[in-house]
Amino acid sequence: MAHKLVVSIRNITDEQWQFIAKTAEELGWTAEFYENIEDALAASKDAEAVFADTPEFVRYAPVLKWMTSPSAGVNHFTRSEDFMKSGVMLSNSSGAYGLTISEHIVMAILTMLRRLPEYQAIIADRQWTRNLTIKSIKNSRITLLGTGDIGCETAKKLRGFEPSKITGVNTSGRAPNVTARDRTASAAGGTNATAGQSRAPECKLFDDIRSIDELDEVLKTTDILIMSLPATDKTYHIMNETRLAGLPDGALIVNVGRGSCIDQTELIRQLKAGRLRAALDVFETEPIPEDSELWECPNLLITPHVAGDMYLPYTVERIVELFVEDFQRYAAGEKPARLVDLNKGY
Amino acid sequence: MAHKLVVSIRNITDEQWQFIAKTAEELGWTAEFYENIEDALAASKDAEAVFADTPEFVRYAPVLKWMTSPSAGVNHFTRSEDFMKSGVMLSNSSGAYGLTISEHIVMAILTMLRRLPEYQAIIADRQWTRNLTIKSIKNSRITLLGTGDIGCETAKKLRGFEPSKITGVNTSGRAPNVTARDRTASAAGGTNATAGQSRAPECKLFDDIRSIDELDEVLKTTDILIMSLPATDKTYHIMNETRLAGLPDGALIVNVGRGSCIDQTELIRQLKAGRLRAALDVFETEPIPEDSELWECPNLLITPHVAGDMYLPYTVERIVELFVEDFQRYAAGEKPARLVDLNKGY
Repeated sequence: MAHKLVVSIRNITDEQWQFIAKTAEELGWTAEFYENIEDALAASKDAEAVFADTPEFVRYAPVLKWMTSPSAGVNHFTRSEDFMKSGVMLSNSSGAYGLTISEHIVMAILTMLRRLPEYQAIIADRQWTRNLTIKSIKNSRITLLGTGDIGCETAKKLRGFEPSKITGVNTSGRAPNVTARDRTASAAGGTNATAGQSRAPECKLFDDIRSIDELDEVLKTTDILIMSLPATDKTYHIMNETRLAGLPDGALIVNVGRGSCIDQTELIRQLKAGRLRAALDVFETEPIPEDSELWECPNLLITPHVAGDMYLPYTVERIVELFVEDFQRYAAGEKPARLVDLNKGY
Repeated sequence: MAHKLVVSIRNITDEQWQFIAKTAEELGWTAEFYENIEDALAASKDAEAVFADTPEFVRYAPVLKWMTSPSAGVNHFTRSEDFMKSGVMLSNSSGAYGLTISEHIVMAILTMLRRLPEYQAIIADRQWTRNLTIKSIKNSRITLLGTGDIGCETAKKLRGFEPSKITGVNTSGRAPNVTARDRTASAAGGTNATAGQSRAPECKLFDDIRSIDELDEVLKTTDILIMSLPATDKTYHIMNETRLAGLPDGALIVNVGRGSCIDQTELIRQLKAGRLRAALDVFETEPIPEDSELWECPNLLITPHVAGDMYLPYTVERIVELFVEDFQRYAAGEKPARLVDLNKGY
């Protein structure tokens, strides 16, 4: 019996589906696409591989060996007991979201530094007040907590704004392996590759890389903190009361990773006190509960977890490219390039 | 009698004023600072030079020879009959606003491409809708109409977002003299200089430079049009009905120059029709009249002429640095570096 792949991905174009179907044919697989997730679940009973975003497949697909999530963060898989004990291999779409999330981050930073929400309120009121003191990225000290695809893409874009320093903070304290990213990107399809490094080799992404053990010290000289961490035991409330208090007055936090990485109650307190400012795309509970203090919190820009959604066509294009690359690797008996370490959670 | 300078500039720090005062002393001038413009006007009756933002000084200062405006756009001077017939030499602060206006432009582009105002409305309504299709700067075709300080600073920042093409359009069709800008900037004070070119010489600002005569053709392949033109006879309604119609469906216009450069009535019509999107910081009449259609116009981000205001401390720092450089040149019998051609208007 032929190997079978089931695909159920939002916003995929006909052309993108044909690219997957053609690859399957070349590899000697059958591939089926389902718009509706229920249909996909039902069709997965003889599937060896599934490309979809729910761990539920492990309850429907007894011969399932490999799942690929179109997301980068996969805590919805790792918190599923069924999935964790299934033995199914998981890969993700890390690398597809750097482009869109880095654009969100730059937008959020400039929006908050230049006080756009306040100017929008003035205009909504048909007023012409023009005297709000603003800030610039230029000469700001930026810290990227998380130096994966998102952190690297963001650092590359922010360099053109001439911050005084860009510091990356990660587990190892070592510079991220950008060469590997470039290779992956170019293998996946050529001209759209994230080629910042290869095109501008003299422009380094980070001025300094520190290990997570040095975070407290780094925060003291951070004007803009950008968080792109996955949800793991180690990142839970990594920005706790002490660390939030360690940031300078007026510092800006942008969180696009997971809401669990910040002690949200304490952050709200410091936002209300006017000590910090924040642009949050992720929250401890999503959607934000009706009675949450977040809705009325000052000095805060809320977006509904859309920094890395799949409504930018380029993102879906990349997700499919990365999947096809890993599909070819899997079919050749190799490990997917974006294999998730289920114990680490990313 | 000593040469006398009168200064009346908003938001200037004590340190900045001391920098001017010390320069005056070194040059053998007297210098007086007035918070209040009326006091400055009264004190200007024996002033040879004035650093302030109103042409009214020509009516109070019979021996006035040189005025410097802290603004970059000086149409408030050139439309003053008194000023135009006074024979007073005018210089401006072109070069001080590129930094802040380019940050505004990137913010405005990302805000509109990523539909932030719509997401803000969703959040204000405590909803969690997440399905708005967005766009990216990546692979977009960008045209900068105006390649002065603002256009160059903006091109430098946008390059990191990997647009498919950055085209500059100006009067001559020749690349702007960036070397001259860098020399000016470094002469004016060193480390804060806009040193993008010298630090990354391989990263060219524009992929293509076209003359204004070729504008109609360029617009046909423009996804994002950035306008930073001064108000002159030649730029009046340069984006007229025909040219607005020449832009592709869904194109975005960002105007930070002068409102007179766009046929506003026609633009509103195309915004209402959903054919174009715009982020406008400048308008045909400012403040926007109470009964203007602009207030309720869809697909439009309005800011109250703040892209290049003086509420970013760095901007004031640059204005003072540039003035001191020109003050030294003037005192040495040279022409100010930022001399305005009153016939051209910039």
